[in-house]
Amino acid sequence: MGIILPLLTVLTLITAGILASAHETLVVSVSLSILAGWMTWKTLPQLKQAFVNARLCGIDLLKREKPVIPETMGLPTAIIYLITMFVFMPFPFMAWFGGKTGPQDTNMSGIFPHHKLGEILSAILAIQSMVLLGFADDVLDVRWRYKVWFPALAGAPLLIFYYTNCGVTDVVLPLQLRPYFGTNIHLGPLYYVYMAMLIIFCTHSINILAGINGIEAGQSLVIAVSIIINDSLYLFNNQDPASLEAHLFSLYFMLPFAGVTIALLLHNWFPAKVFVGDTYCYFAGMTLAVVGILGHFSKTLLLFFIPQIFNFIYSCPQLFKVIECPRHRMPRFNPETGLLECSTVILDAKKPTSKLGRFVIKIFYSLGLIKAFKCSSNEEDNGRVLECNNLTIINLILAYCGPMSERDTAVSLLCIQFFASVMAFFIRYKLVEYVY
Amino acid sequence: MGIILPLLTVLTLITAGILASAHETLVVSVSLSILAGWMTWKTLPQLKQAFVNARLCGIDLLKREKPVIPETMGLPTAIIYLITMFVFMPFPFMAWFGGKTGPQDTNMSGIFPHHKLGEILSAILAIQSMVLLGFADDVLDVRWRYKVWFPALAGAPLLIFYYTNCGVTDVVLPLQLRPYFGTNIHLGPLYYVYMAMLIIFCTHSINILAGINGIEAGQSLVIAVSIIINDSLYLFNNQDPASLEAHLFSLYFMLPFAGVTIALLLHNWFPAKVFVGDTYCYFAGMTLAVVGILGHFSKTLLLFFIPQIFNFIYSCPQLFKVIECPRHRMPRFNPETGLLECSTVILDAKKPTSKLGRFVIKIFYSLGLIKAFKCSSNEEDNGRVLECNNLTIINLILAYCGPMSERDTAVSLLCIQFFASVMAFFIRYKLVEYVY
Repeated sequence: MGIILPLLTVLTLITAGILASAHETLVVSVSLSILAGWMTWKTLPQLKQAFVNARLCGIDLLKREKPVIPETMGLPTAIIYLITMFVFMPFPFMAWFGGKTGPQDTNMSGIFPHHKLGEILSAILAIQSMVLLGFADDVLDVRWRYKVWFPALAGAPLLIFYYTNCGVTDVVLPLQLRPYFGTNIHLGPLYYVYMAMLIIFCTHSINILAGINGIEAGQSLVIAVSIIINDSLYLFNNQDPASLEAHLFSLYFMLPFAGVTIALLLHNWFPAKVFVGDTYCYFAGMTLAVVGILGHFSKTLLLFFIPQIFNFIYSCPQLFKVIECPRHRMPRFNPETGLLECSTVILDAKKPTSKLGRFVIKIFYSLGLIKAFKCSSNEEDNGRVLECNNLTIINLILAYCGPMSERDTAVSLLCIQFFASVMAFFIRYKLVEYVY
Repeated sequence: MGIILPLLTVLTLITAGILASAHETLVVSVSLSILAGWMTWKTLPQLKQAFVNARLCGIDLLKREKPVIPETMGLPTAIIYLITMFVFMPFPFMAWFGGKTGPQDTNMSGIFPHHKLGEILSAILAIQSMVLLGFADDVLDVRWRYKVWFPALAGAPLLIFYYTNCGVTDVVLPLQLRPYFGTNIHLGPLYYVYMAMLIIFCTHSINILAGINGIEAGQSLVIAVSIIINDSLYLFNNQDPASLEAHLFSLYFMLPFAGVTIALLLHNWFPAKVFVGDTYCYFAGMTLAVVGILGHFSKTLLLFFIPQIFNFIYSCPQLFKVIECPRHRMPRFNPETGLLECSTVILDAKKPTSKLGRFVIKIFYSLGLIKAFKCSSNEEDNGRVLECNNLTIINLILAYCGPMSERDTAVSLLCIQFFASVMAFFIRYKLVEYVY
């Protein structure tokens, strides 16, 4: 990590300079984000013992020594983030304070923009609700059938605020569909279902793509930085004040998030000294979803989530028990080499795989999406797969490129995330011309 | 408890009827409050094992069998409260939805009152922040020097919103002071310090007056019901729409709070089957403080807190180590009689009491505020107190009226709380004429 810290510092200062030149409130946001990151970086090591004492700790199974490591470090990270947002809250509205009736340099009226403040409040409320439920899950170990609805519950204030704020529920249709349905389609209540689904997906998808050091915070950071870059593109020469405002709003939430995430990642990177816990995964997923919804770029957001979408769809057969699903699907640690290998699932082990299950395996196998470790020698079975890698993107990479060290596996996954973002930008700004 | 449930039901229905006749949104609020109470009552028993499994449990020291009881049951209580508030949030604004431009029966303009929605959001945010920090305290056992500032931290969004909402910071002076300072005094930033202090006081004072079954939820319930009665007085024939709105706002928060608190109290009442935890004390204190501040009746609120104020001032010599303070100051359980006796402190036990400490003891003794259990026989010492009851209101009652059963002690304390409320109403509506 010797080179990473100075590199991050230089990068941060350059970013700060660029953003500061675009909008003065961003100076405050960038400063607070750096402060939040520094505080997180300093605070986490001091809390380690308290968390272990409270039995908020877990064993790092992918190490030779099986060290006990404090868990749920996402909680202090999220709390520092929330405090930062509380402190930051008045700054976008500074022009309205101190006897002035409103900012002189815009064409806004003198009325205090309570709807904008309400937007920030509802966003923080949704994020905080998710942190509370995530922490409760870490402590109480809630069952999946309940916690799958947690994000929708936590997102409720956001959706309600969206409703009261007369939020747009129209969707612009692709060019190819316009002759049949018109330019816009009014989704109405369906749009709220879409937003709820988006919140549930973003929140859980980060929690599912987990299990090796640095991967939860790492993927969140790549997505957050992608959003920051995307927002920055709208800061300069943007003639539409609503669009400028939406992307500023997004930056206000993403910059401190990137700050605290970098700090957490430094402690969570291989070999991890802290675990992030469900609290962090939920916190990260909700923050990204909130920003996508209130910043009105939920489709772009989903492009940044391509690896998570792939991982989710790829995992579905096991998540929904179409294929045998072992309790843990994390990679296997080989104590002799010290490297990670993909963990495998033996089909038909407990009960014979269903027809649907066999079909899915066949399709995945022919697409090269699973690596078979044992095939049937029976001719009747047509050489069908009897043992394959567990259906997660981590195991897929290890199946083809492994064995690898834990650090290299994390780096590979983050590279995939990075290239997905590059592709997302390409789709968003080049390919999109053919569709919209 | 056989008589309490039907009694509560009848009382609730009467209250519901009266409130519903005053304002239609209150019908929704009362219904949701009853639902929230019912859900809390049903949910808590089902969560007991999960909390014990997560080691969120404690020993009830004041029982012969020393049973292990699930702790932190304030968390599900608070979460049900918060969900209720999320669900309730759109209802006060129903008139603005569905194509109408605004309520026809008031003189408000057609603009959606985002500042009112923001007020509700900031209040929920403050309460939820306190629940999160309270839960973190229950799990991690944070040190007092840190957690004393938790309420100020959690209250930040409220104060910031108060500021952006151009909140009044004037205080009306008593008649006797007006010739010197004028009718109003503009406190400015000092008013924010006052509000922060109020939040810190309300939150911790409920946490300090604790230690026997049913006392935390019981005192909160008496205060909440007092506030509900006080609010109801403003509902009828109120010509001032701002005052009506402020007290409606207060009711919207207090009714569900009373609902979930009754349910919690039923489980926490002697012999307790669950403990409420710091989470509940913080949640209750913050909810009451928030309502007092945004409802603009913080002075009336403080009148309802008279027993807590007395208990705090009375505790100060021990809290600030002027007098020896043992680790626990809860009453002593006599296993032979099964009754509670006051716990005592032996002065000069570890180090000689300071001059200030001796002075305080002397004053308290001469006022009858401590009961001496051992006095010096040395003539030089002038018969000074060597052992007395610990300085809490619970021990004071037990010193004079004890030994008592735990249930009777709780009933006595709740009676004191009740008479304090009666006195508060007398001061607020009768004595006040001589001062304002």
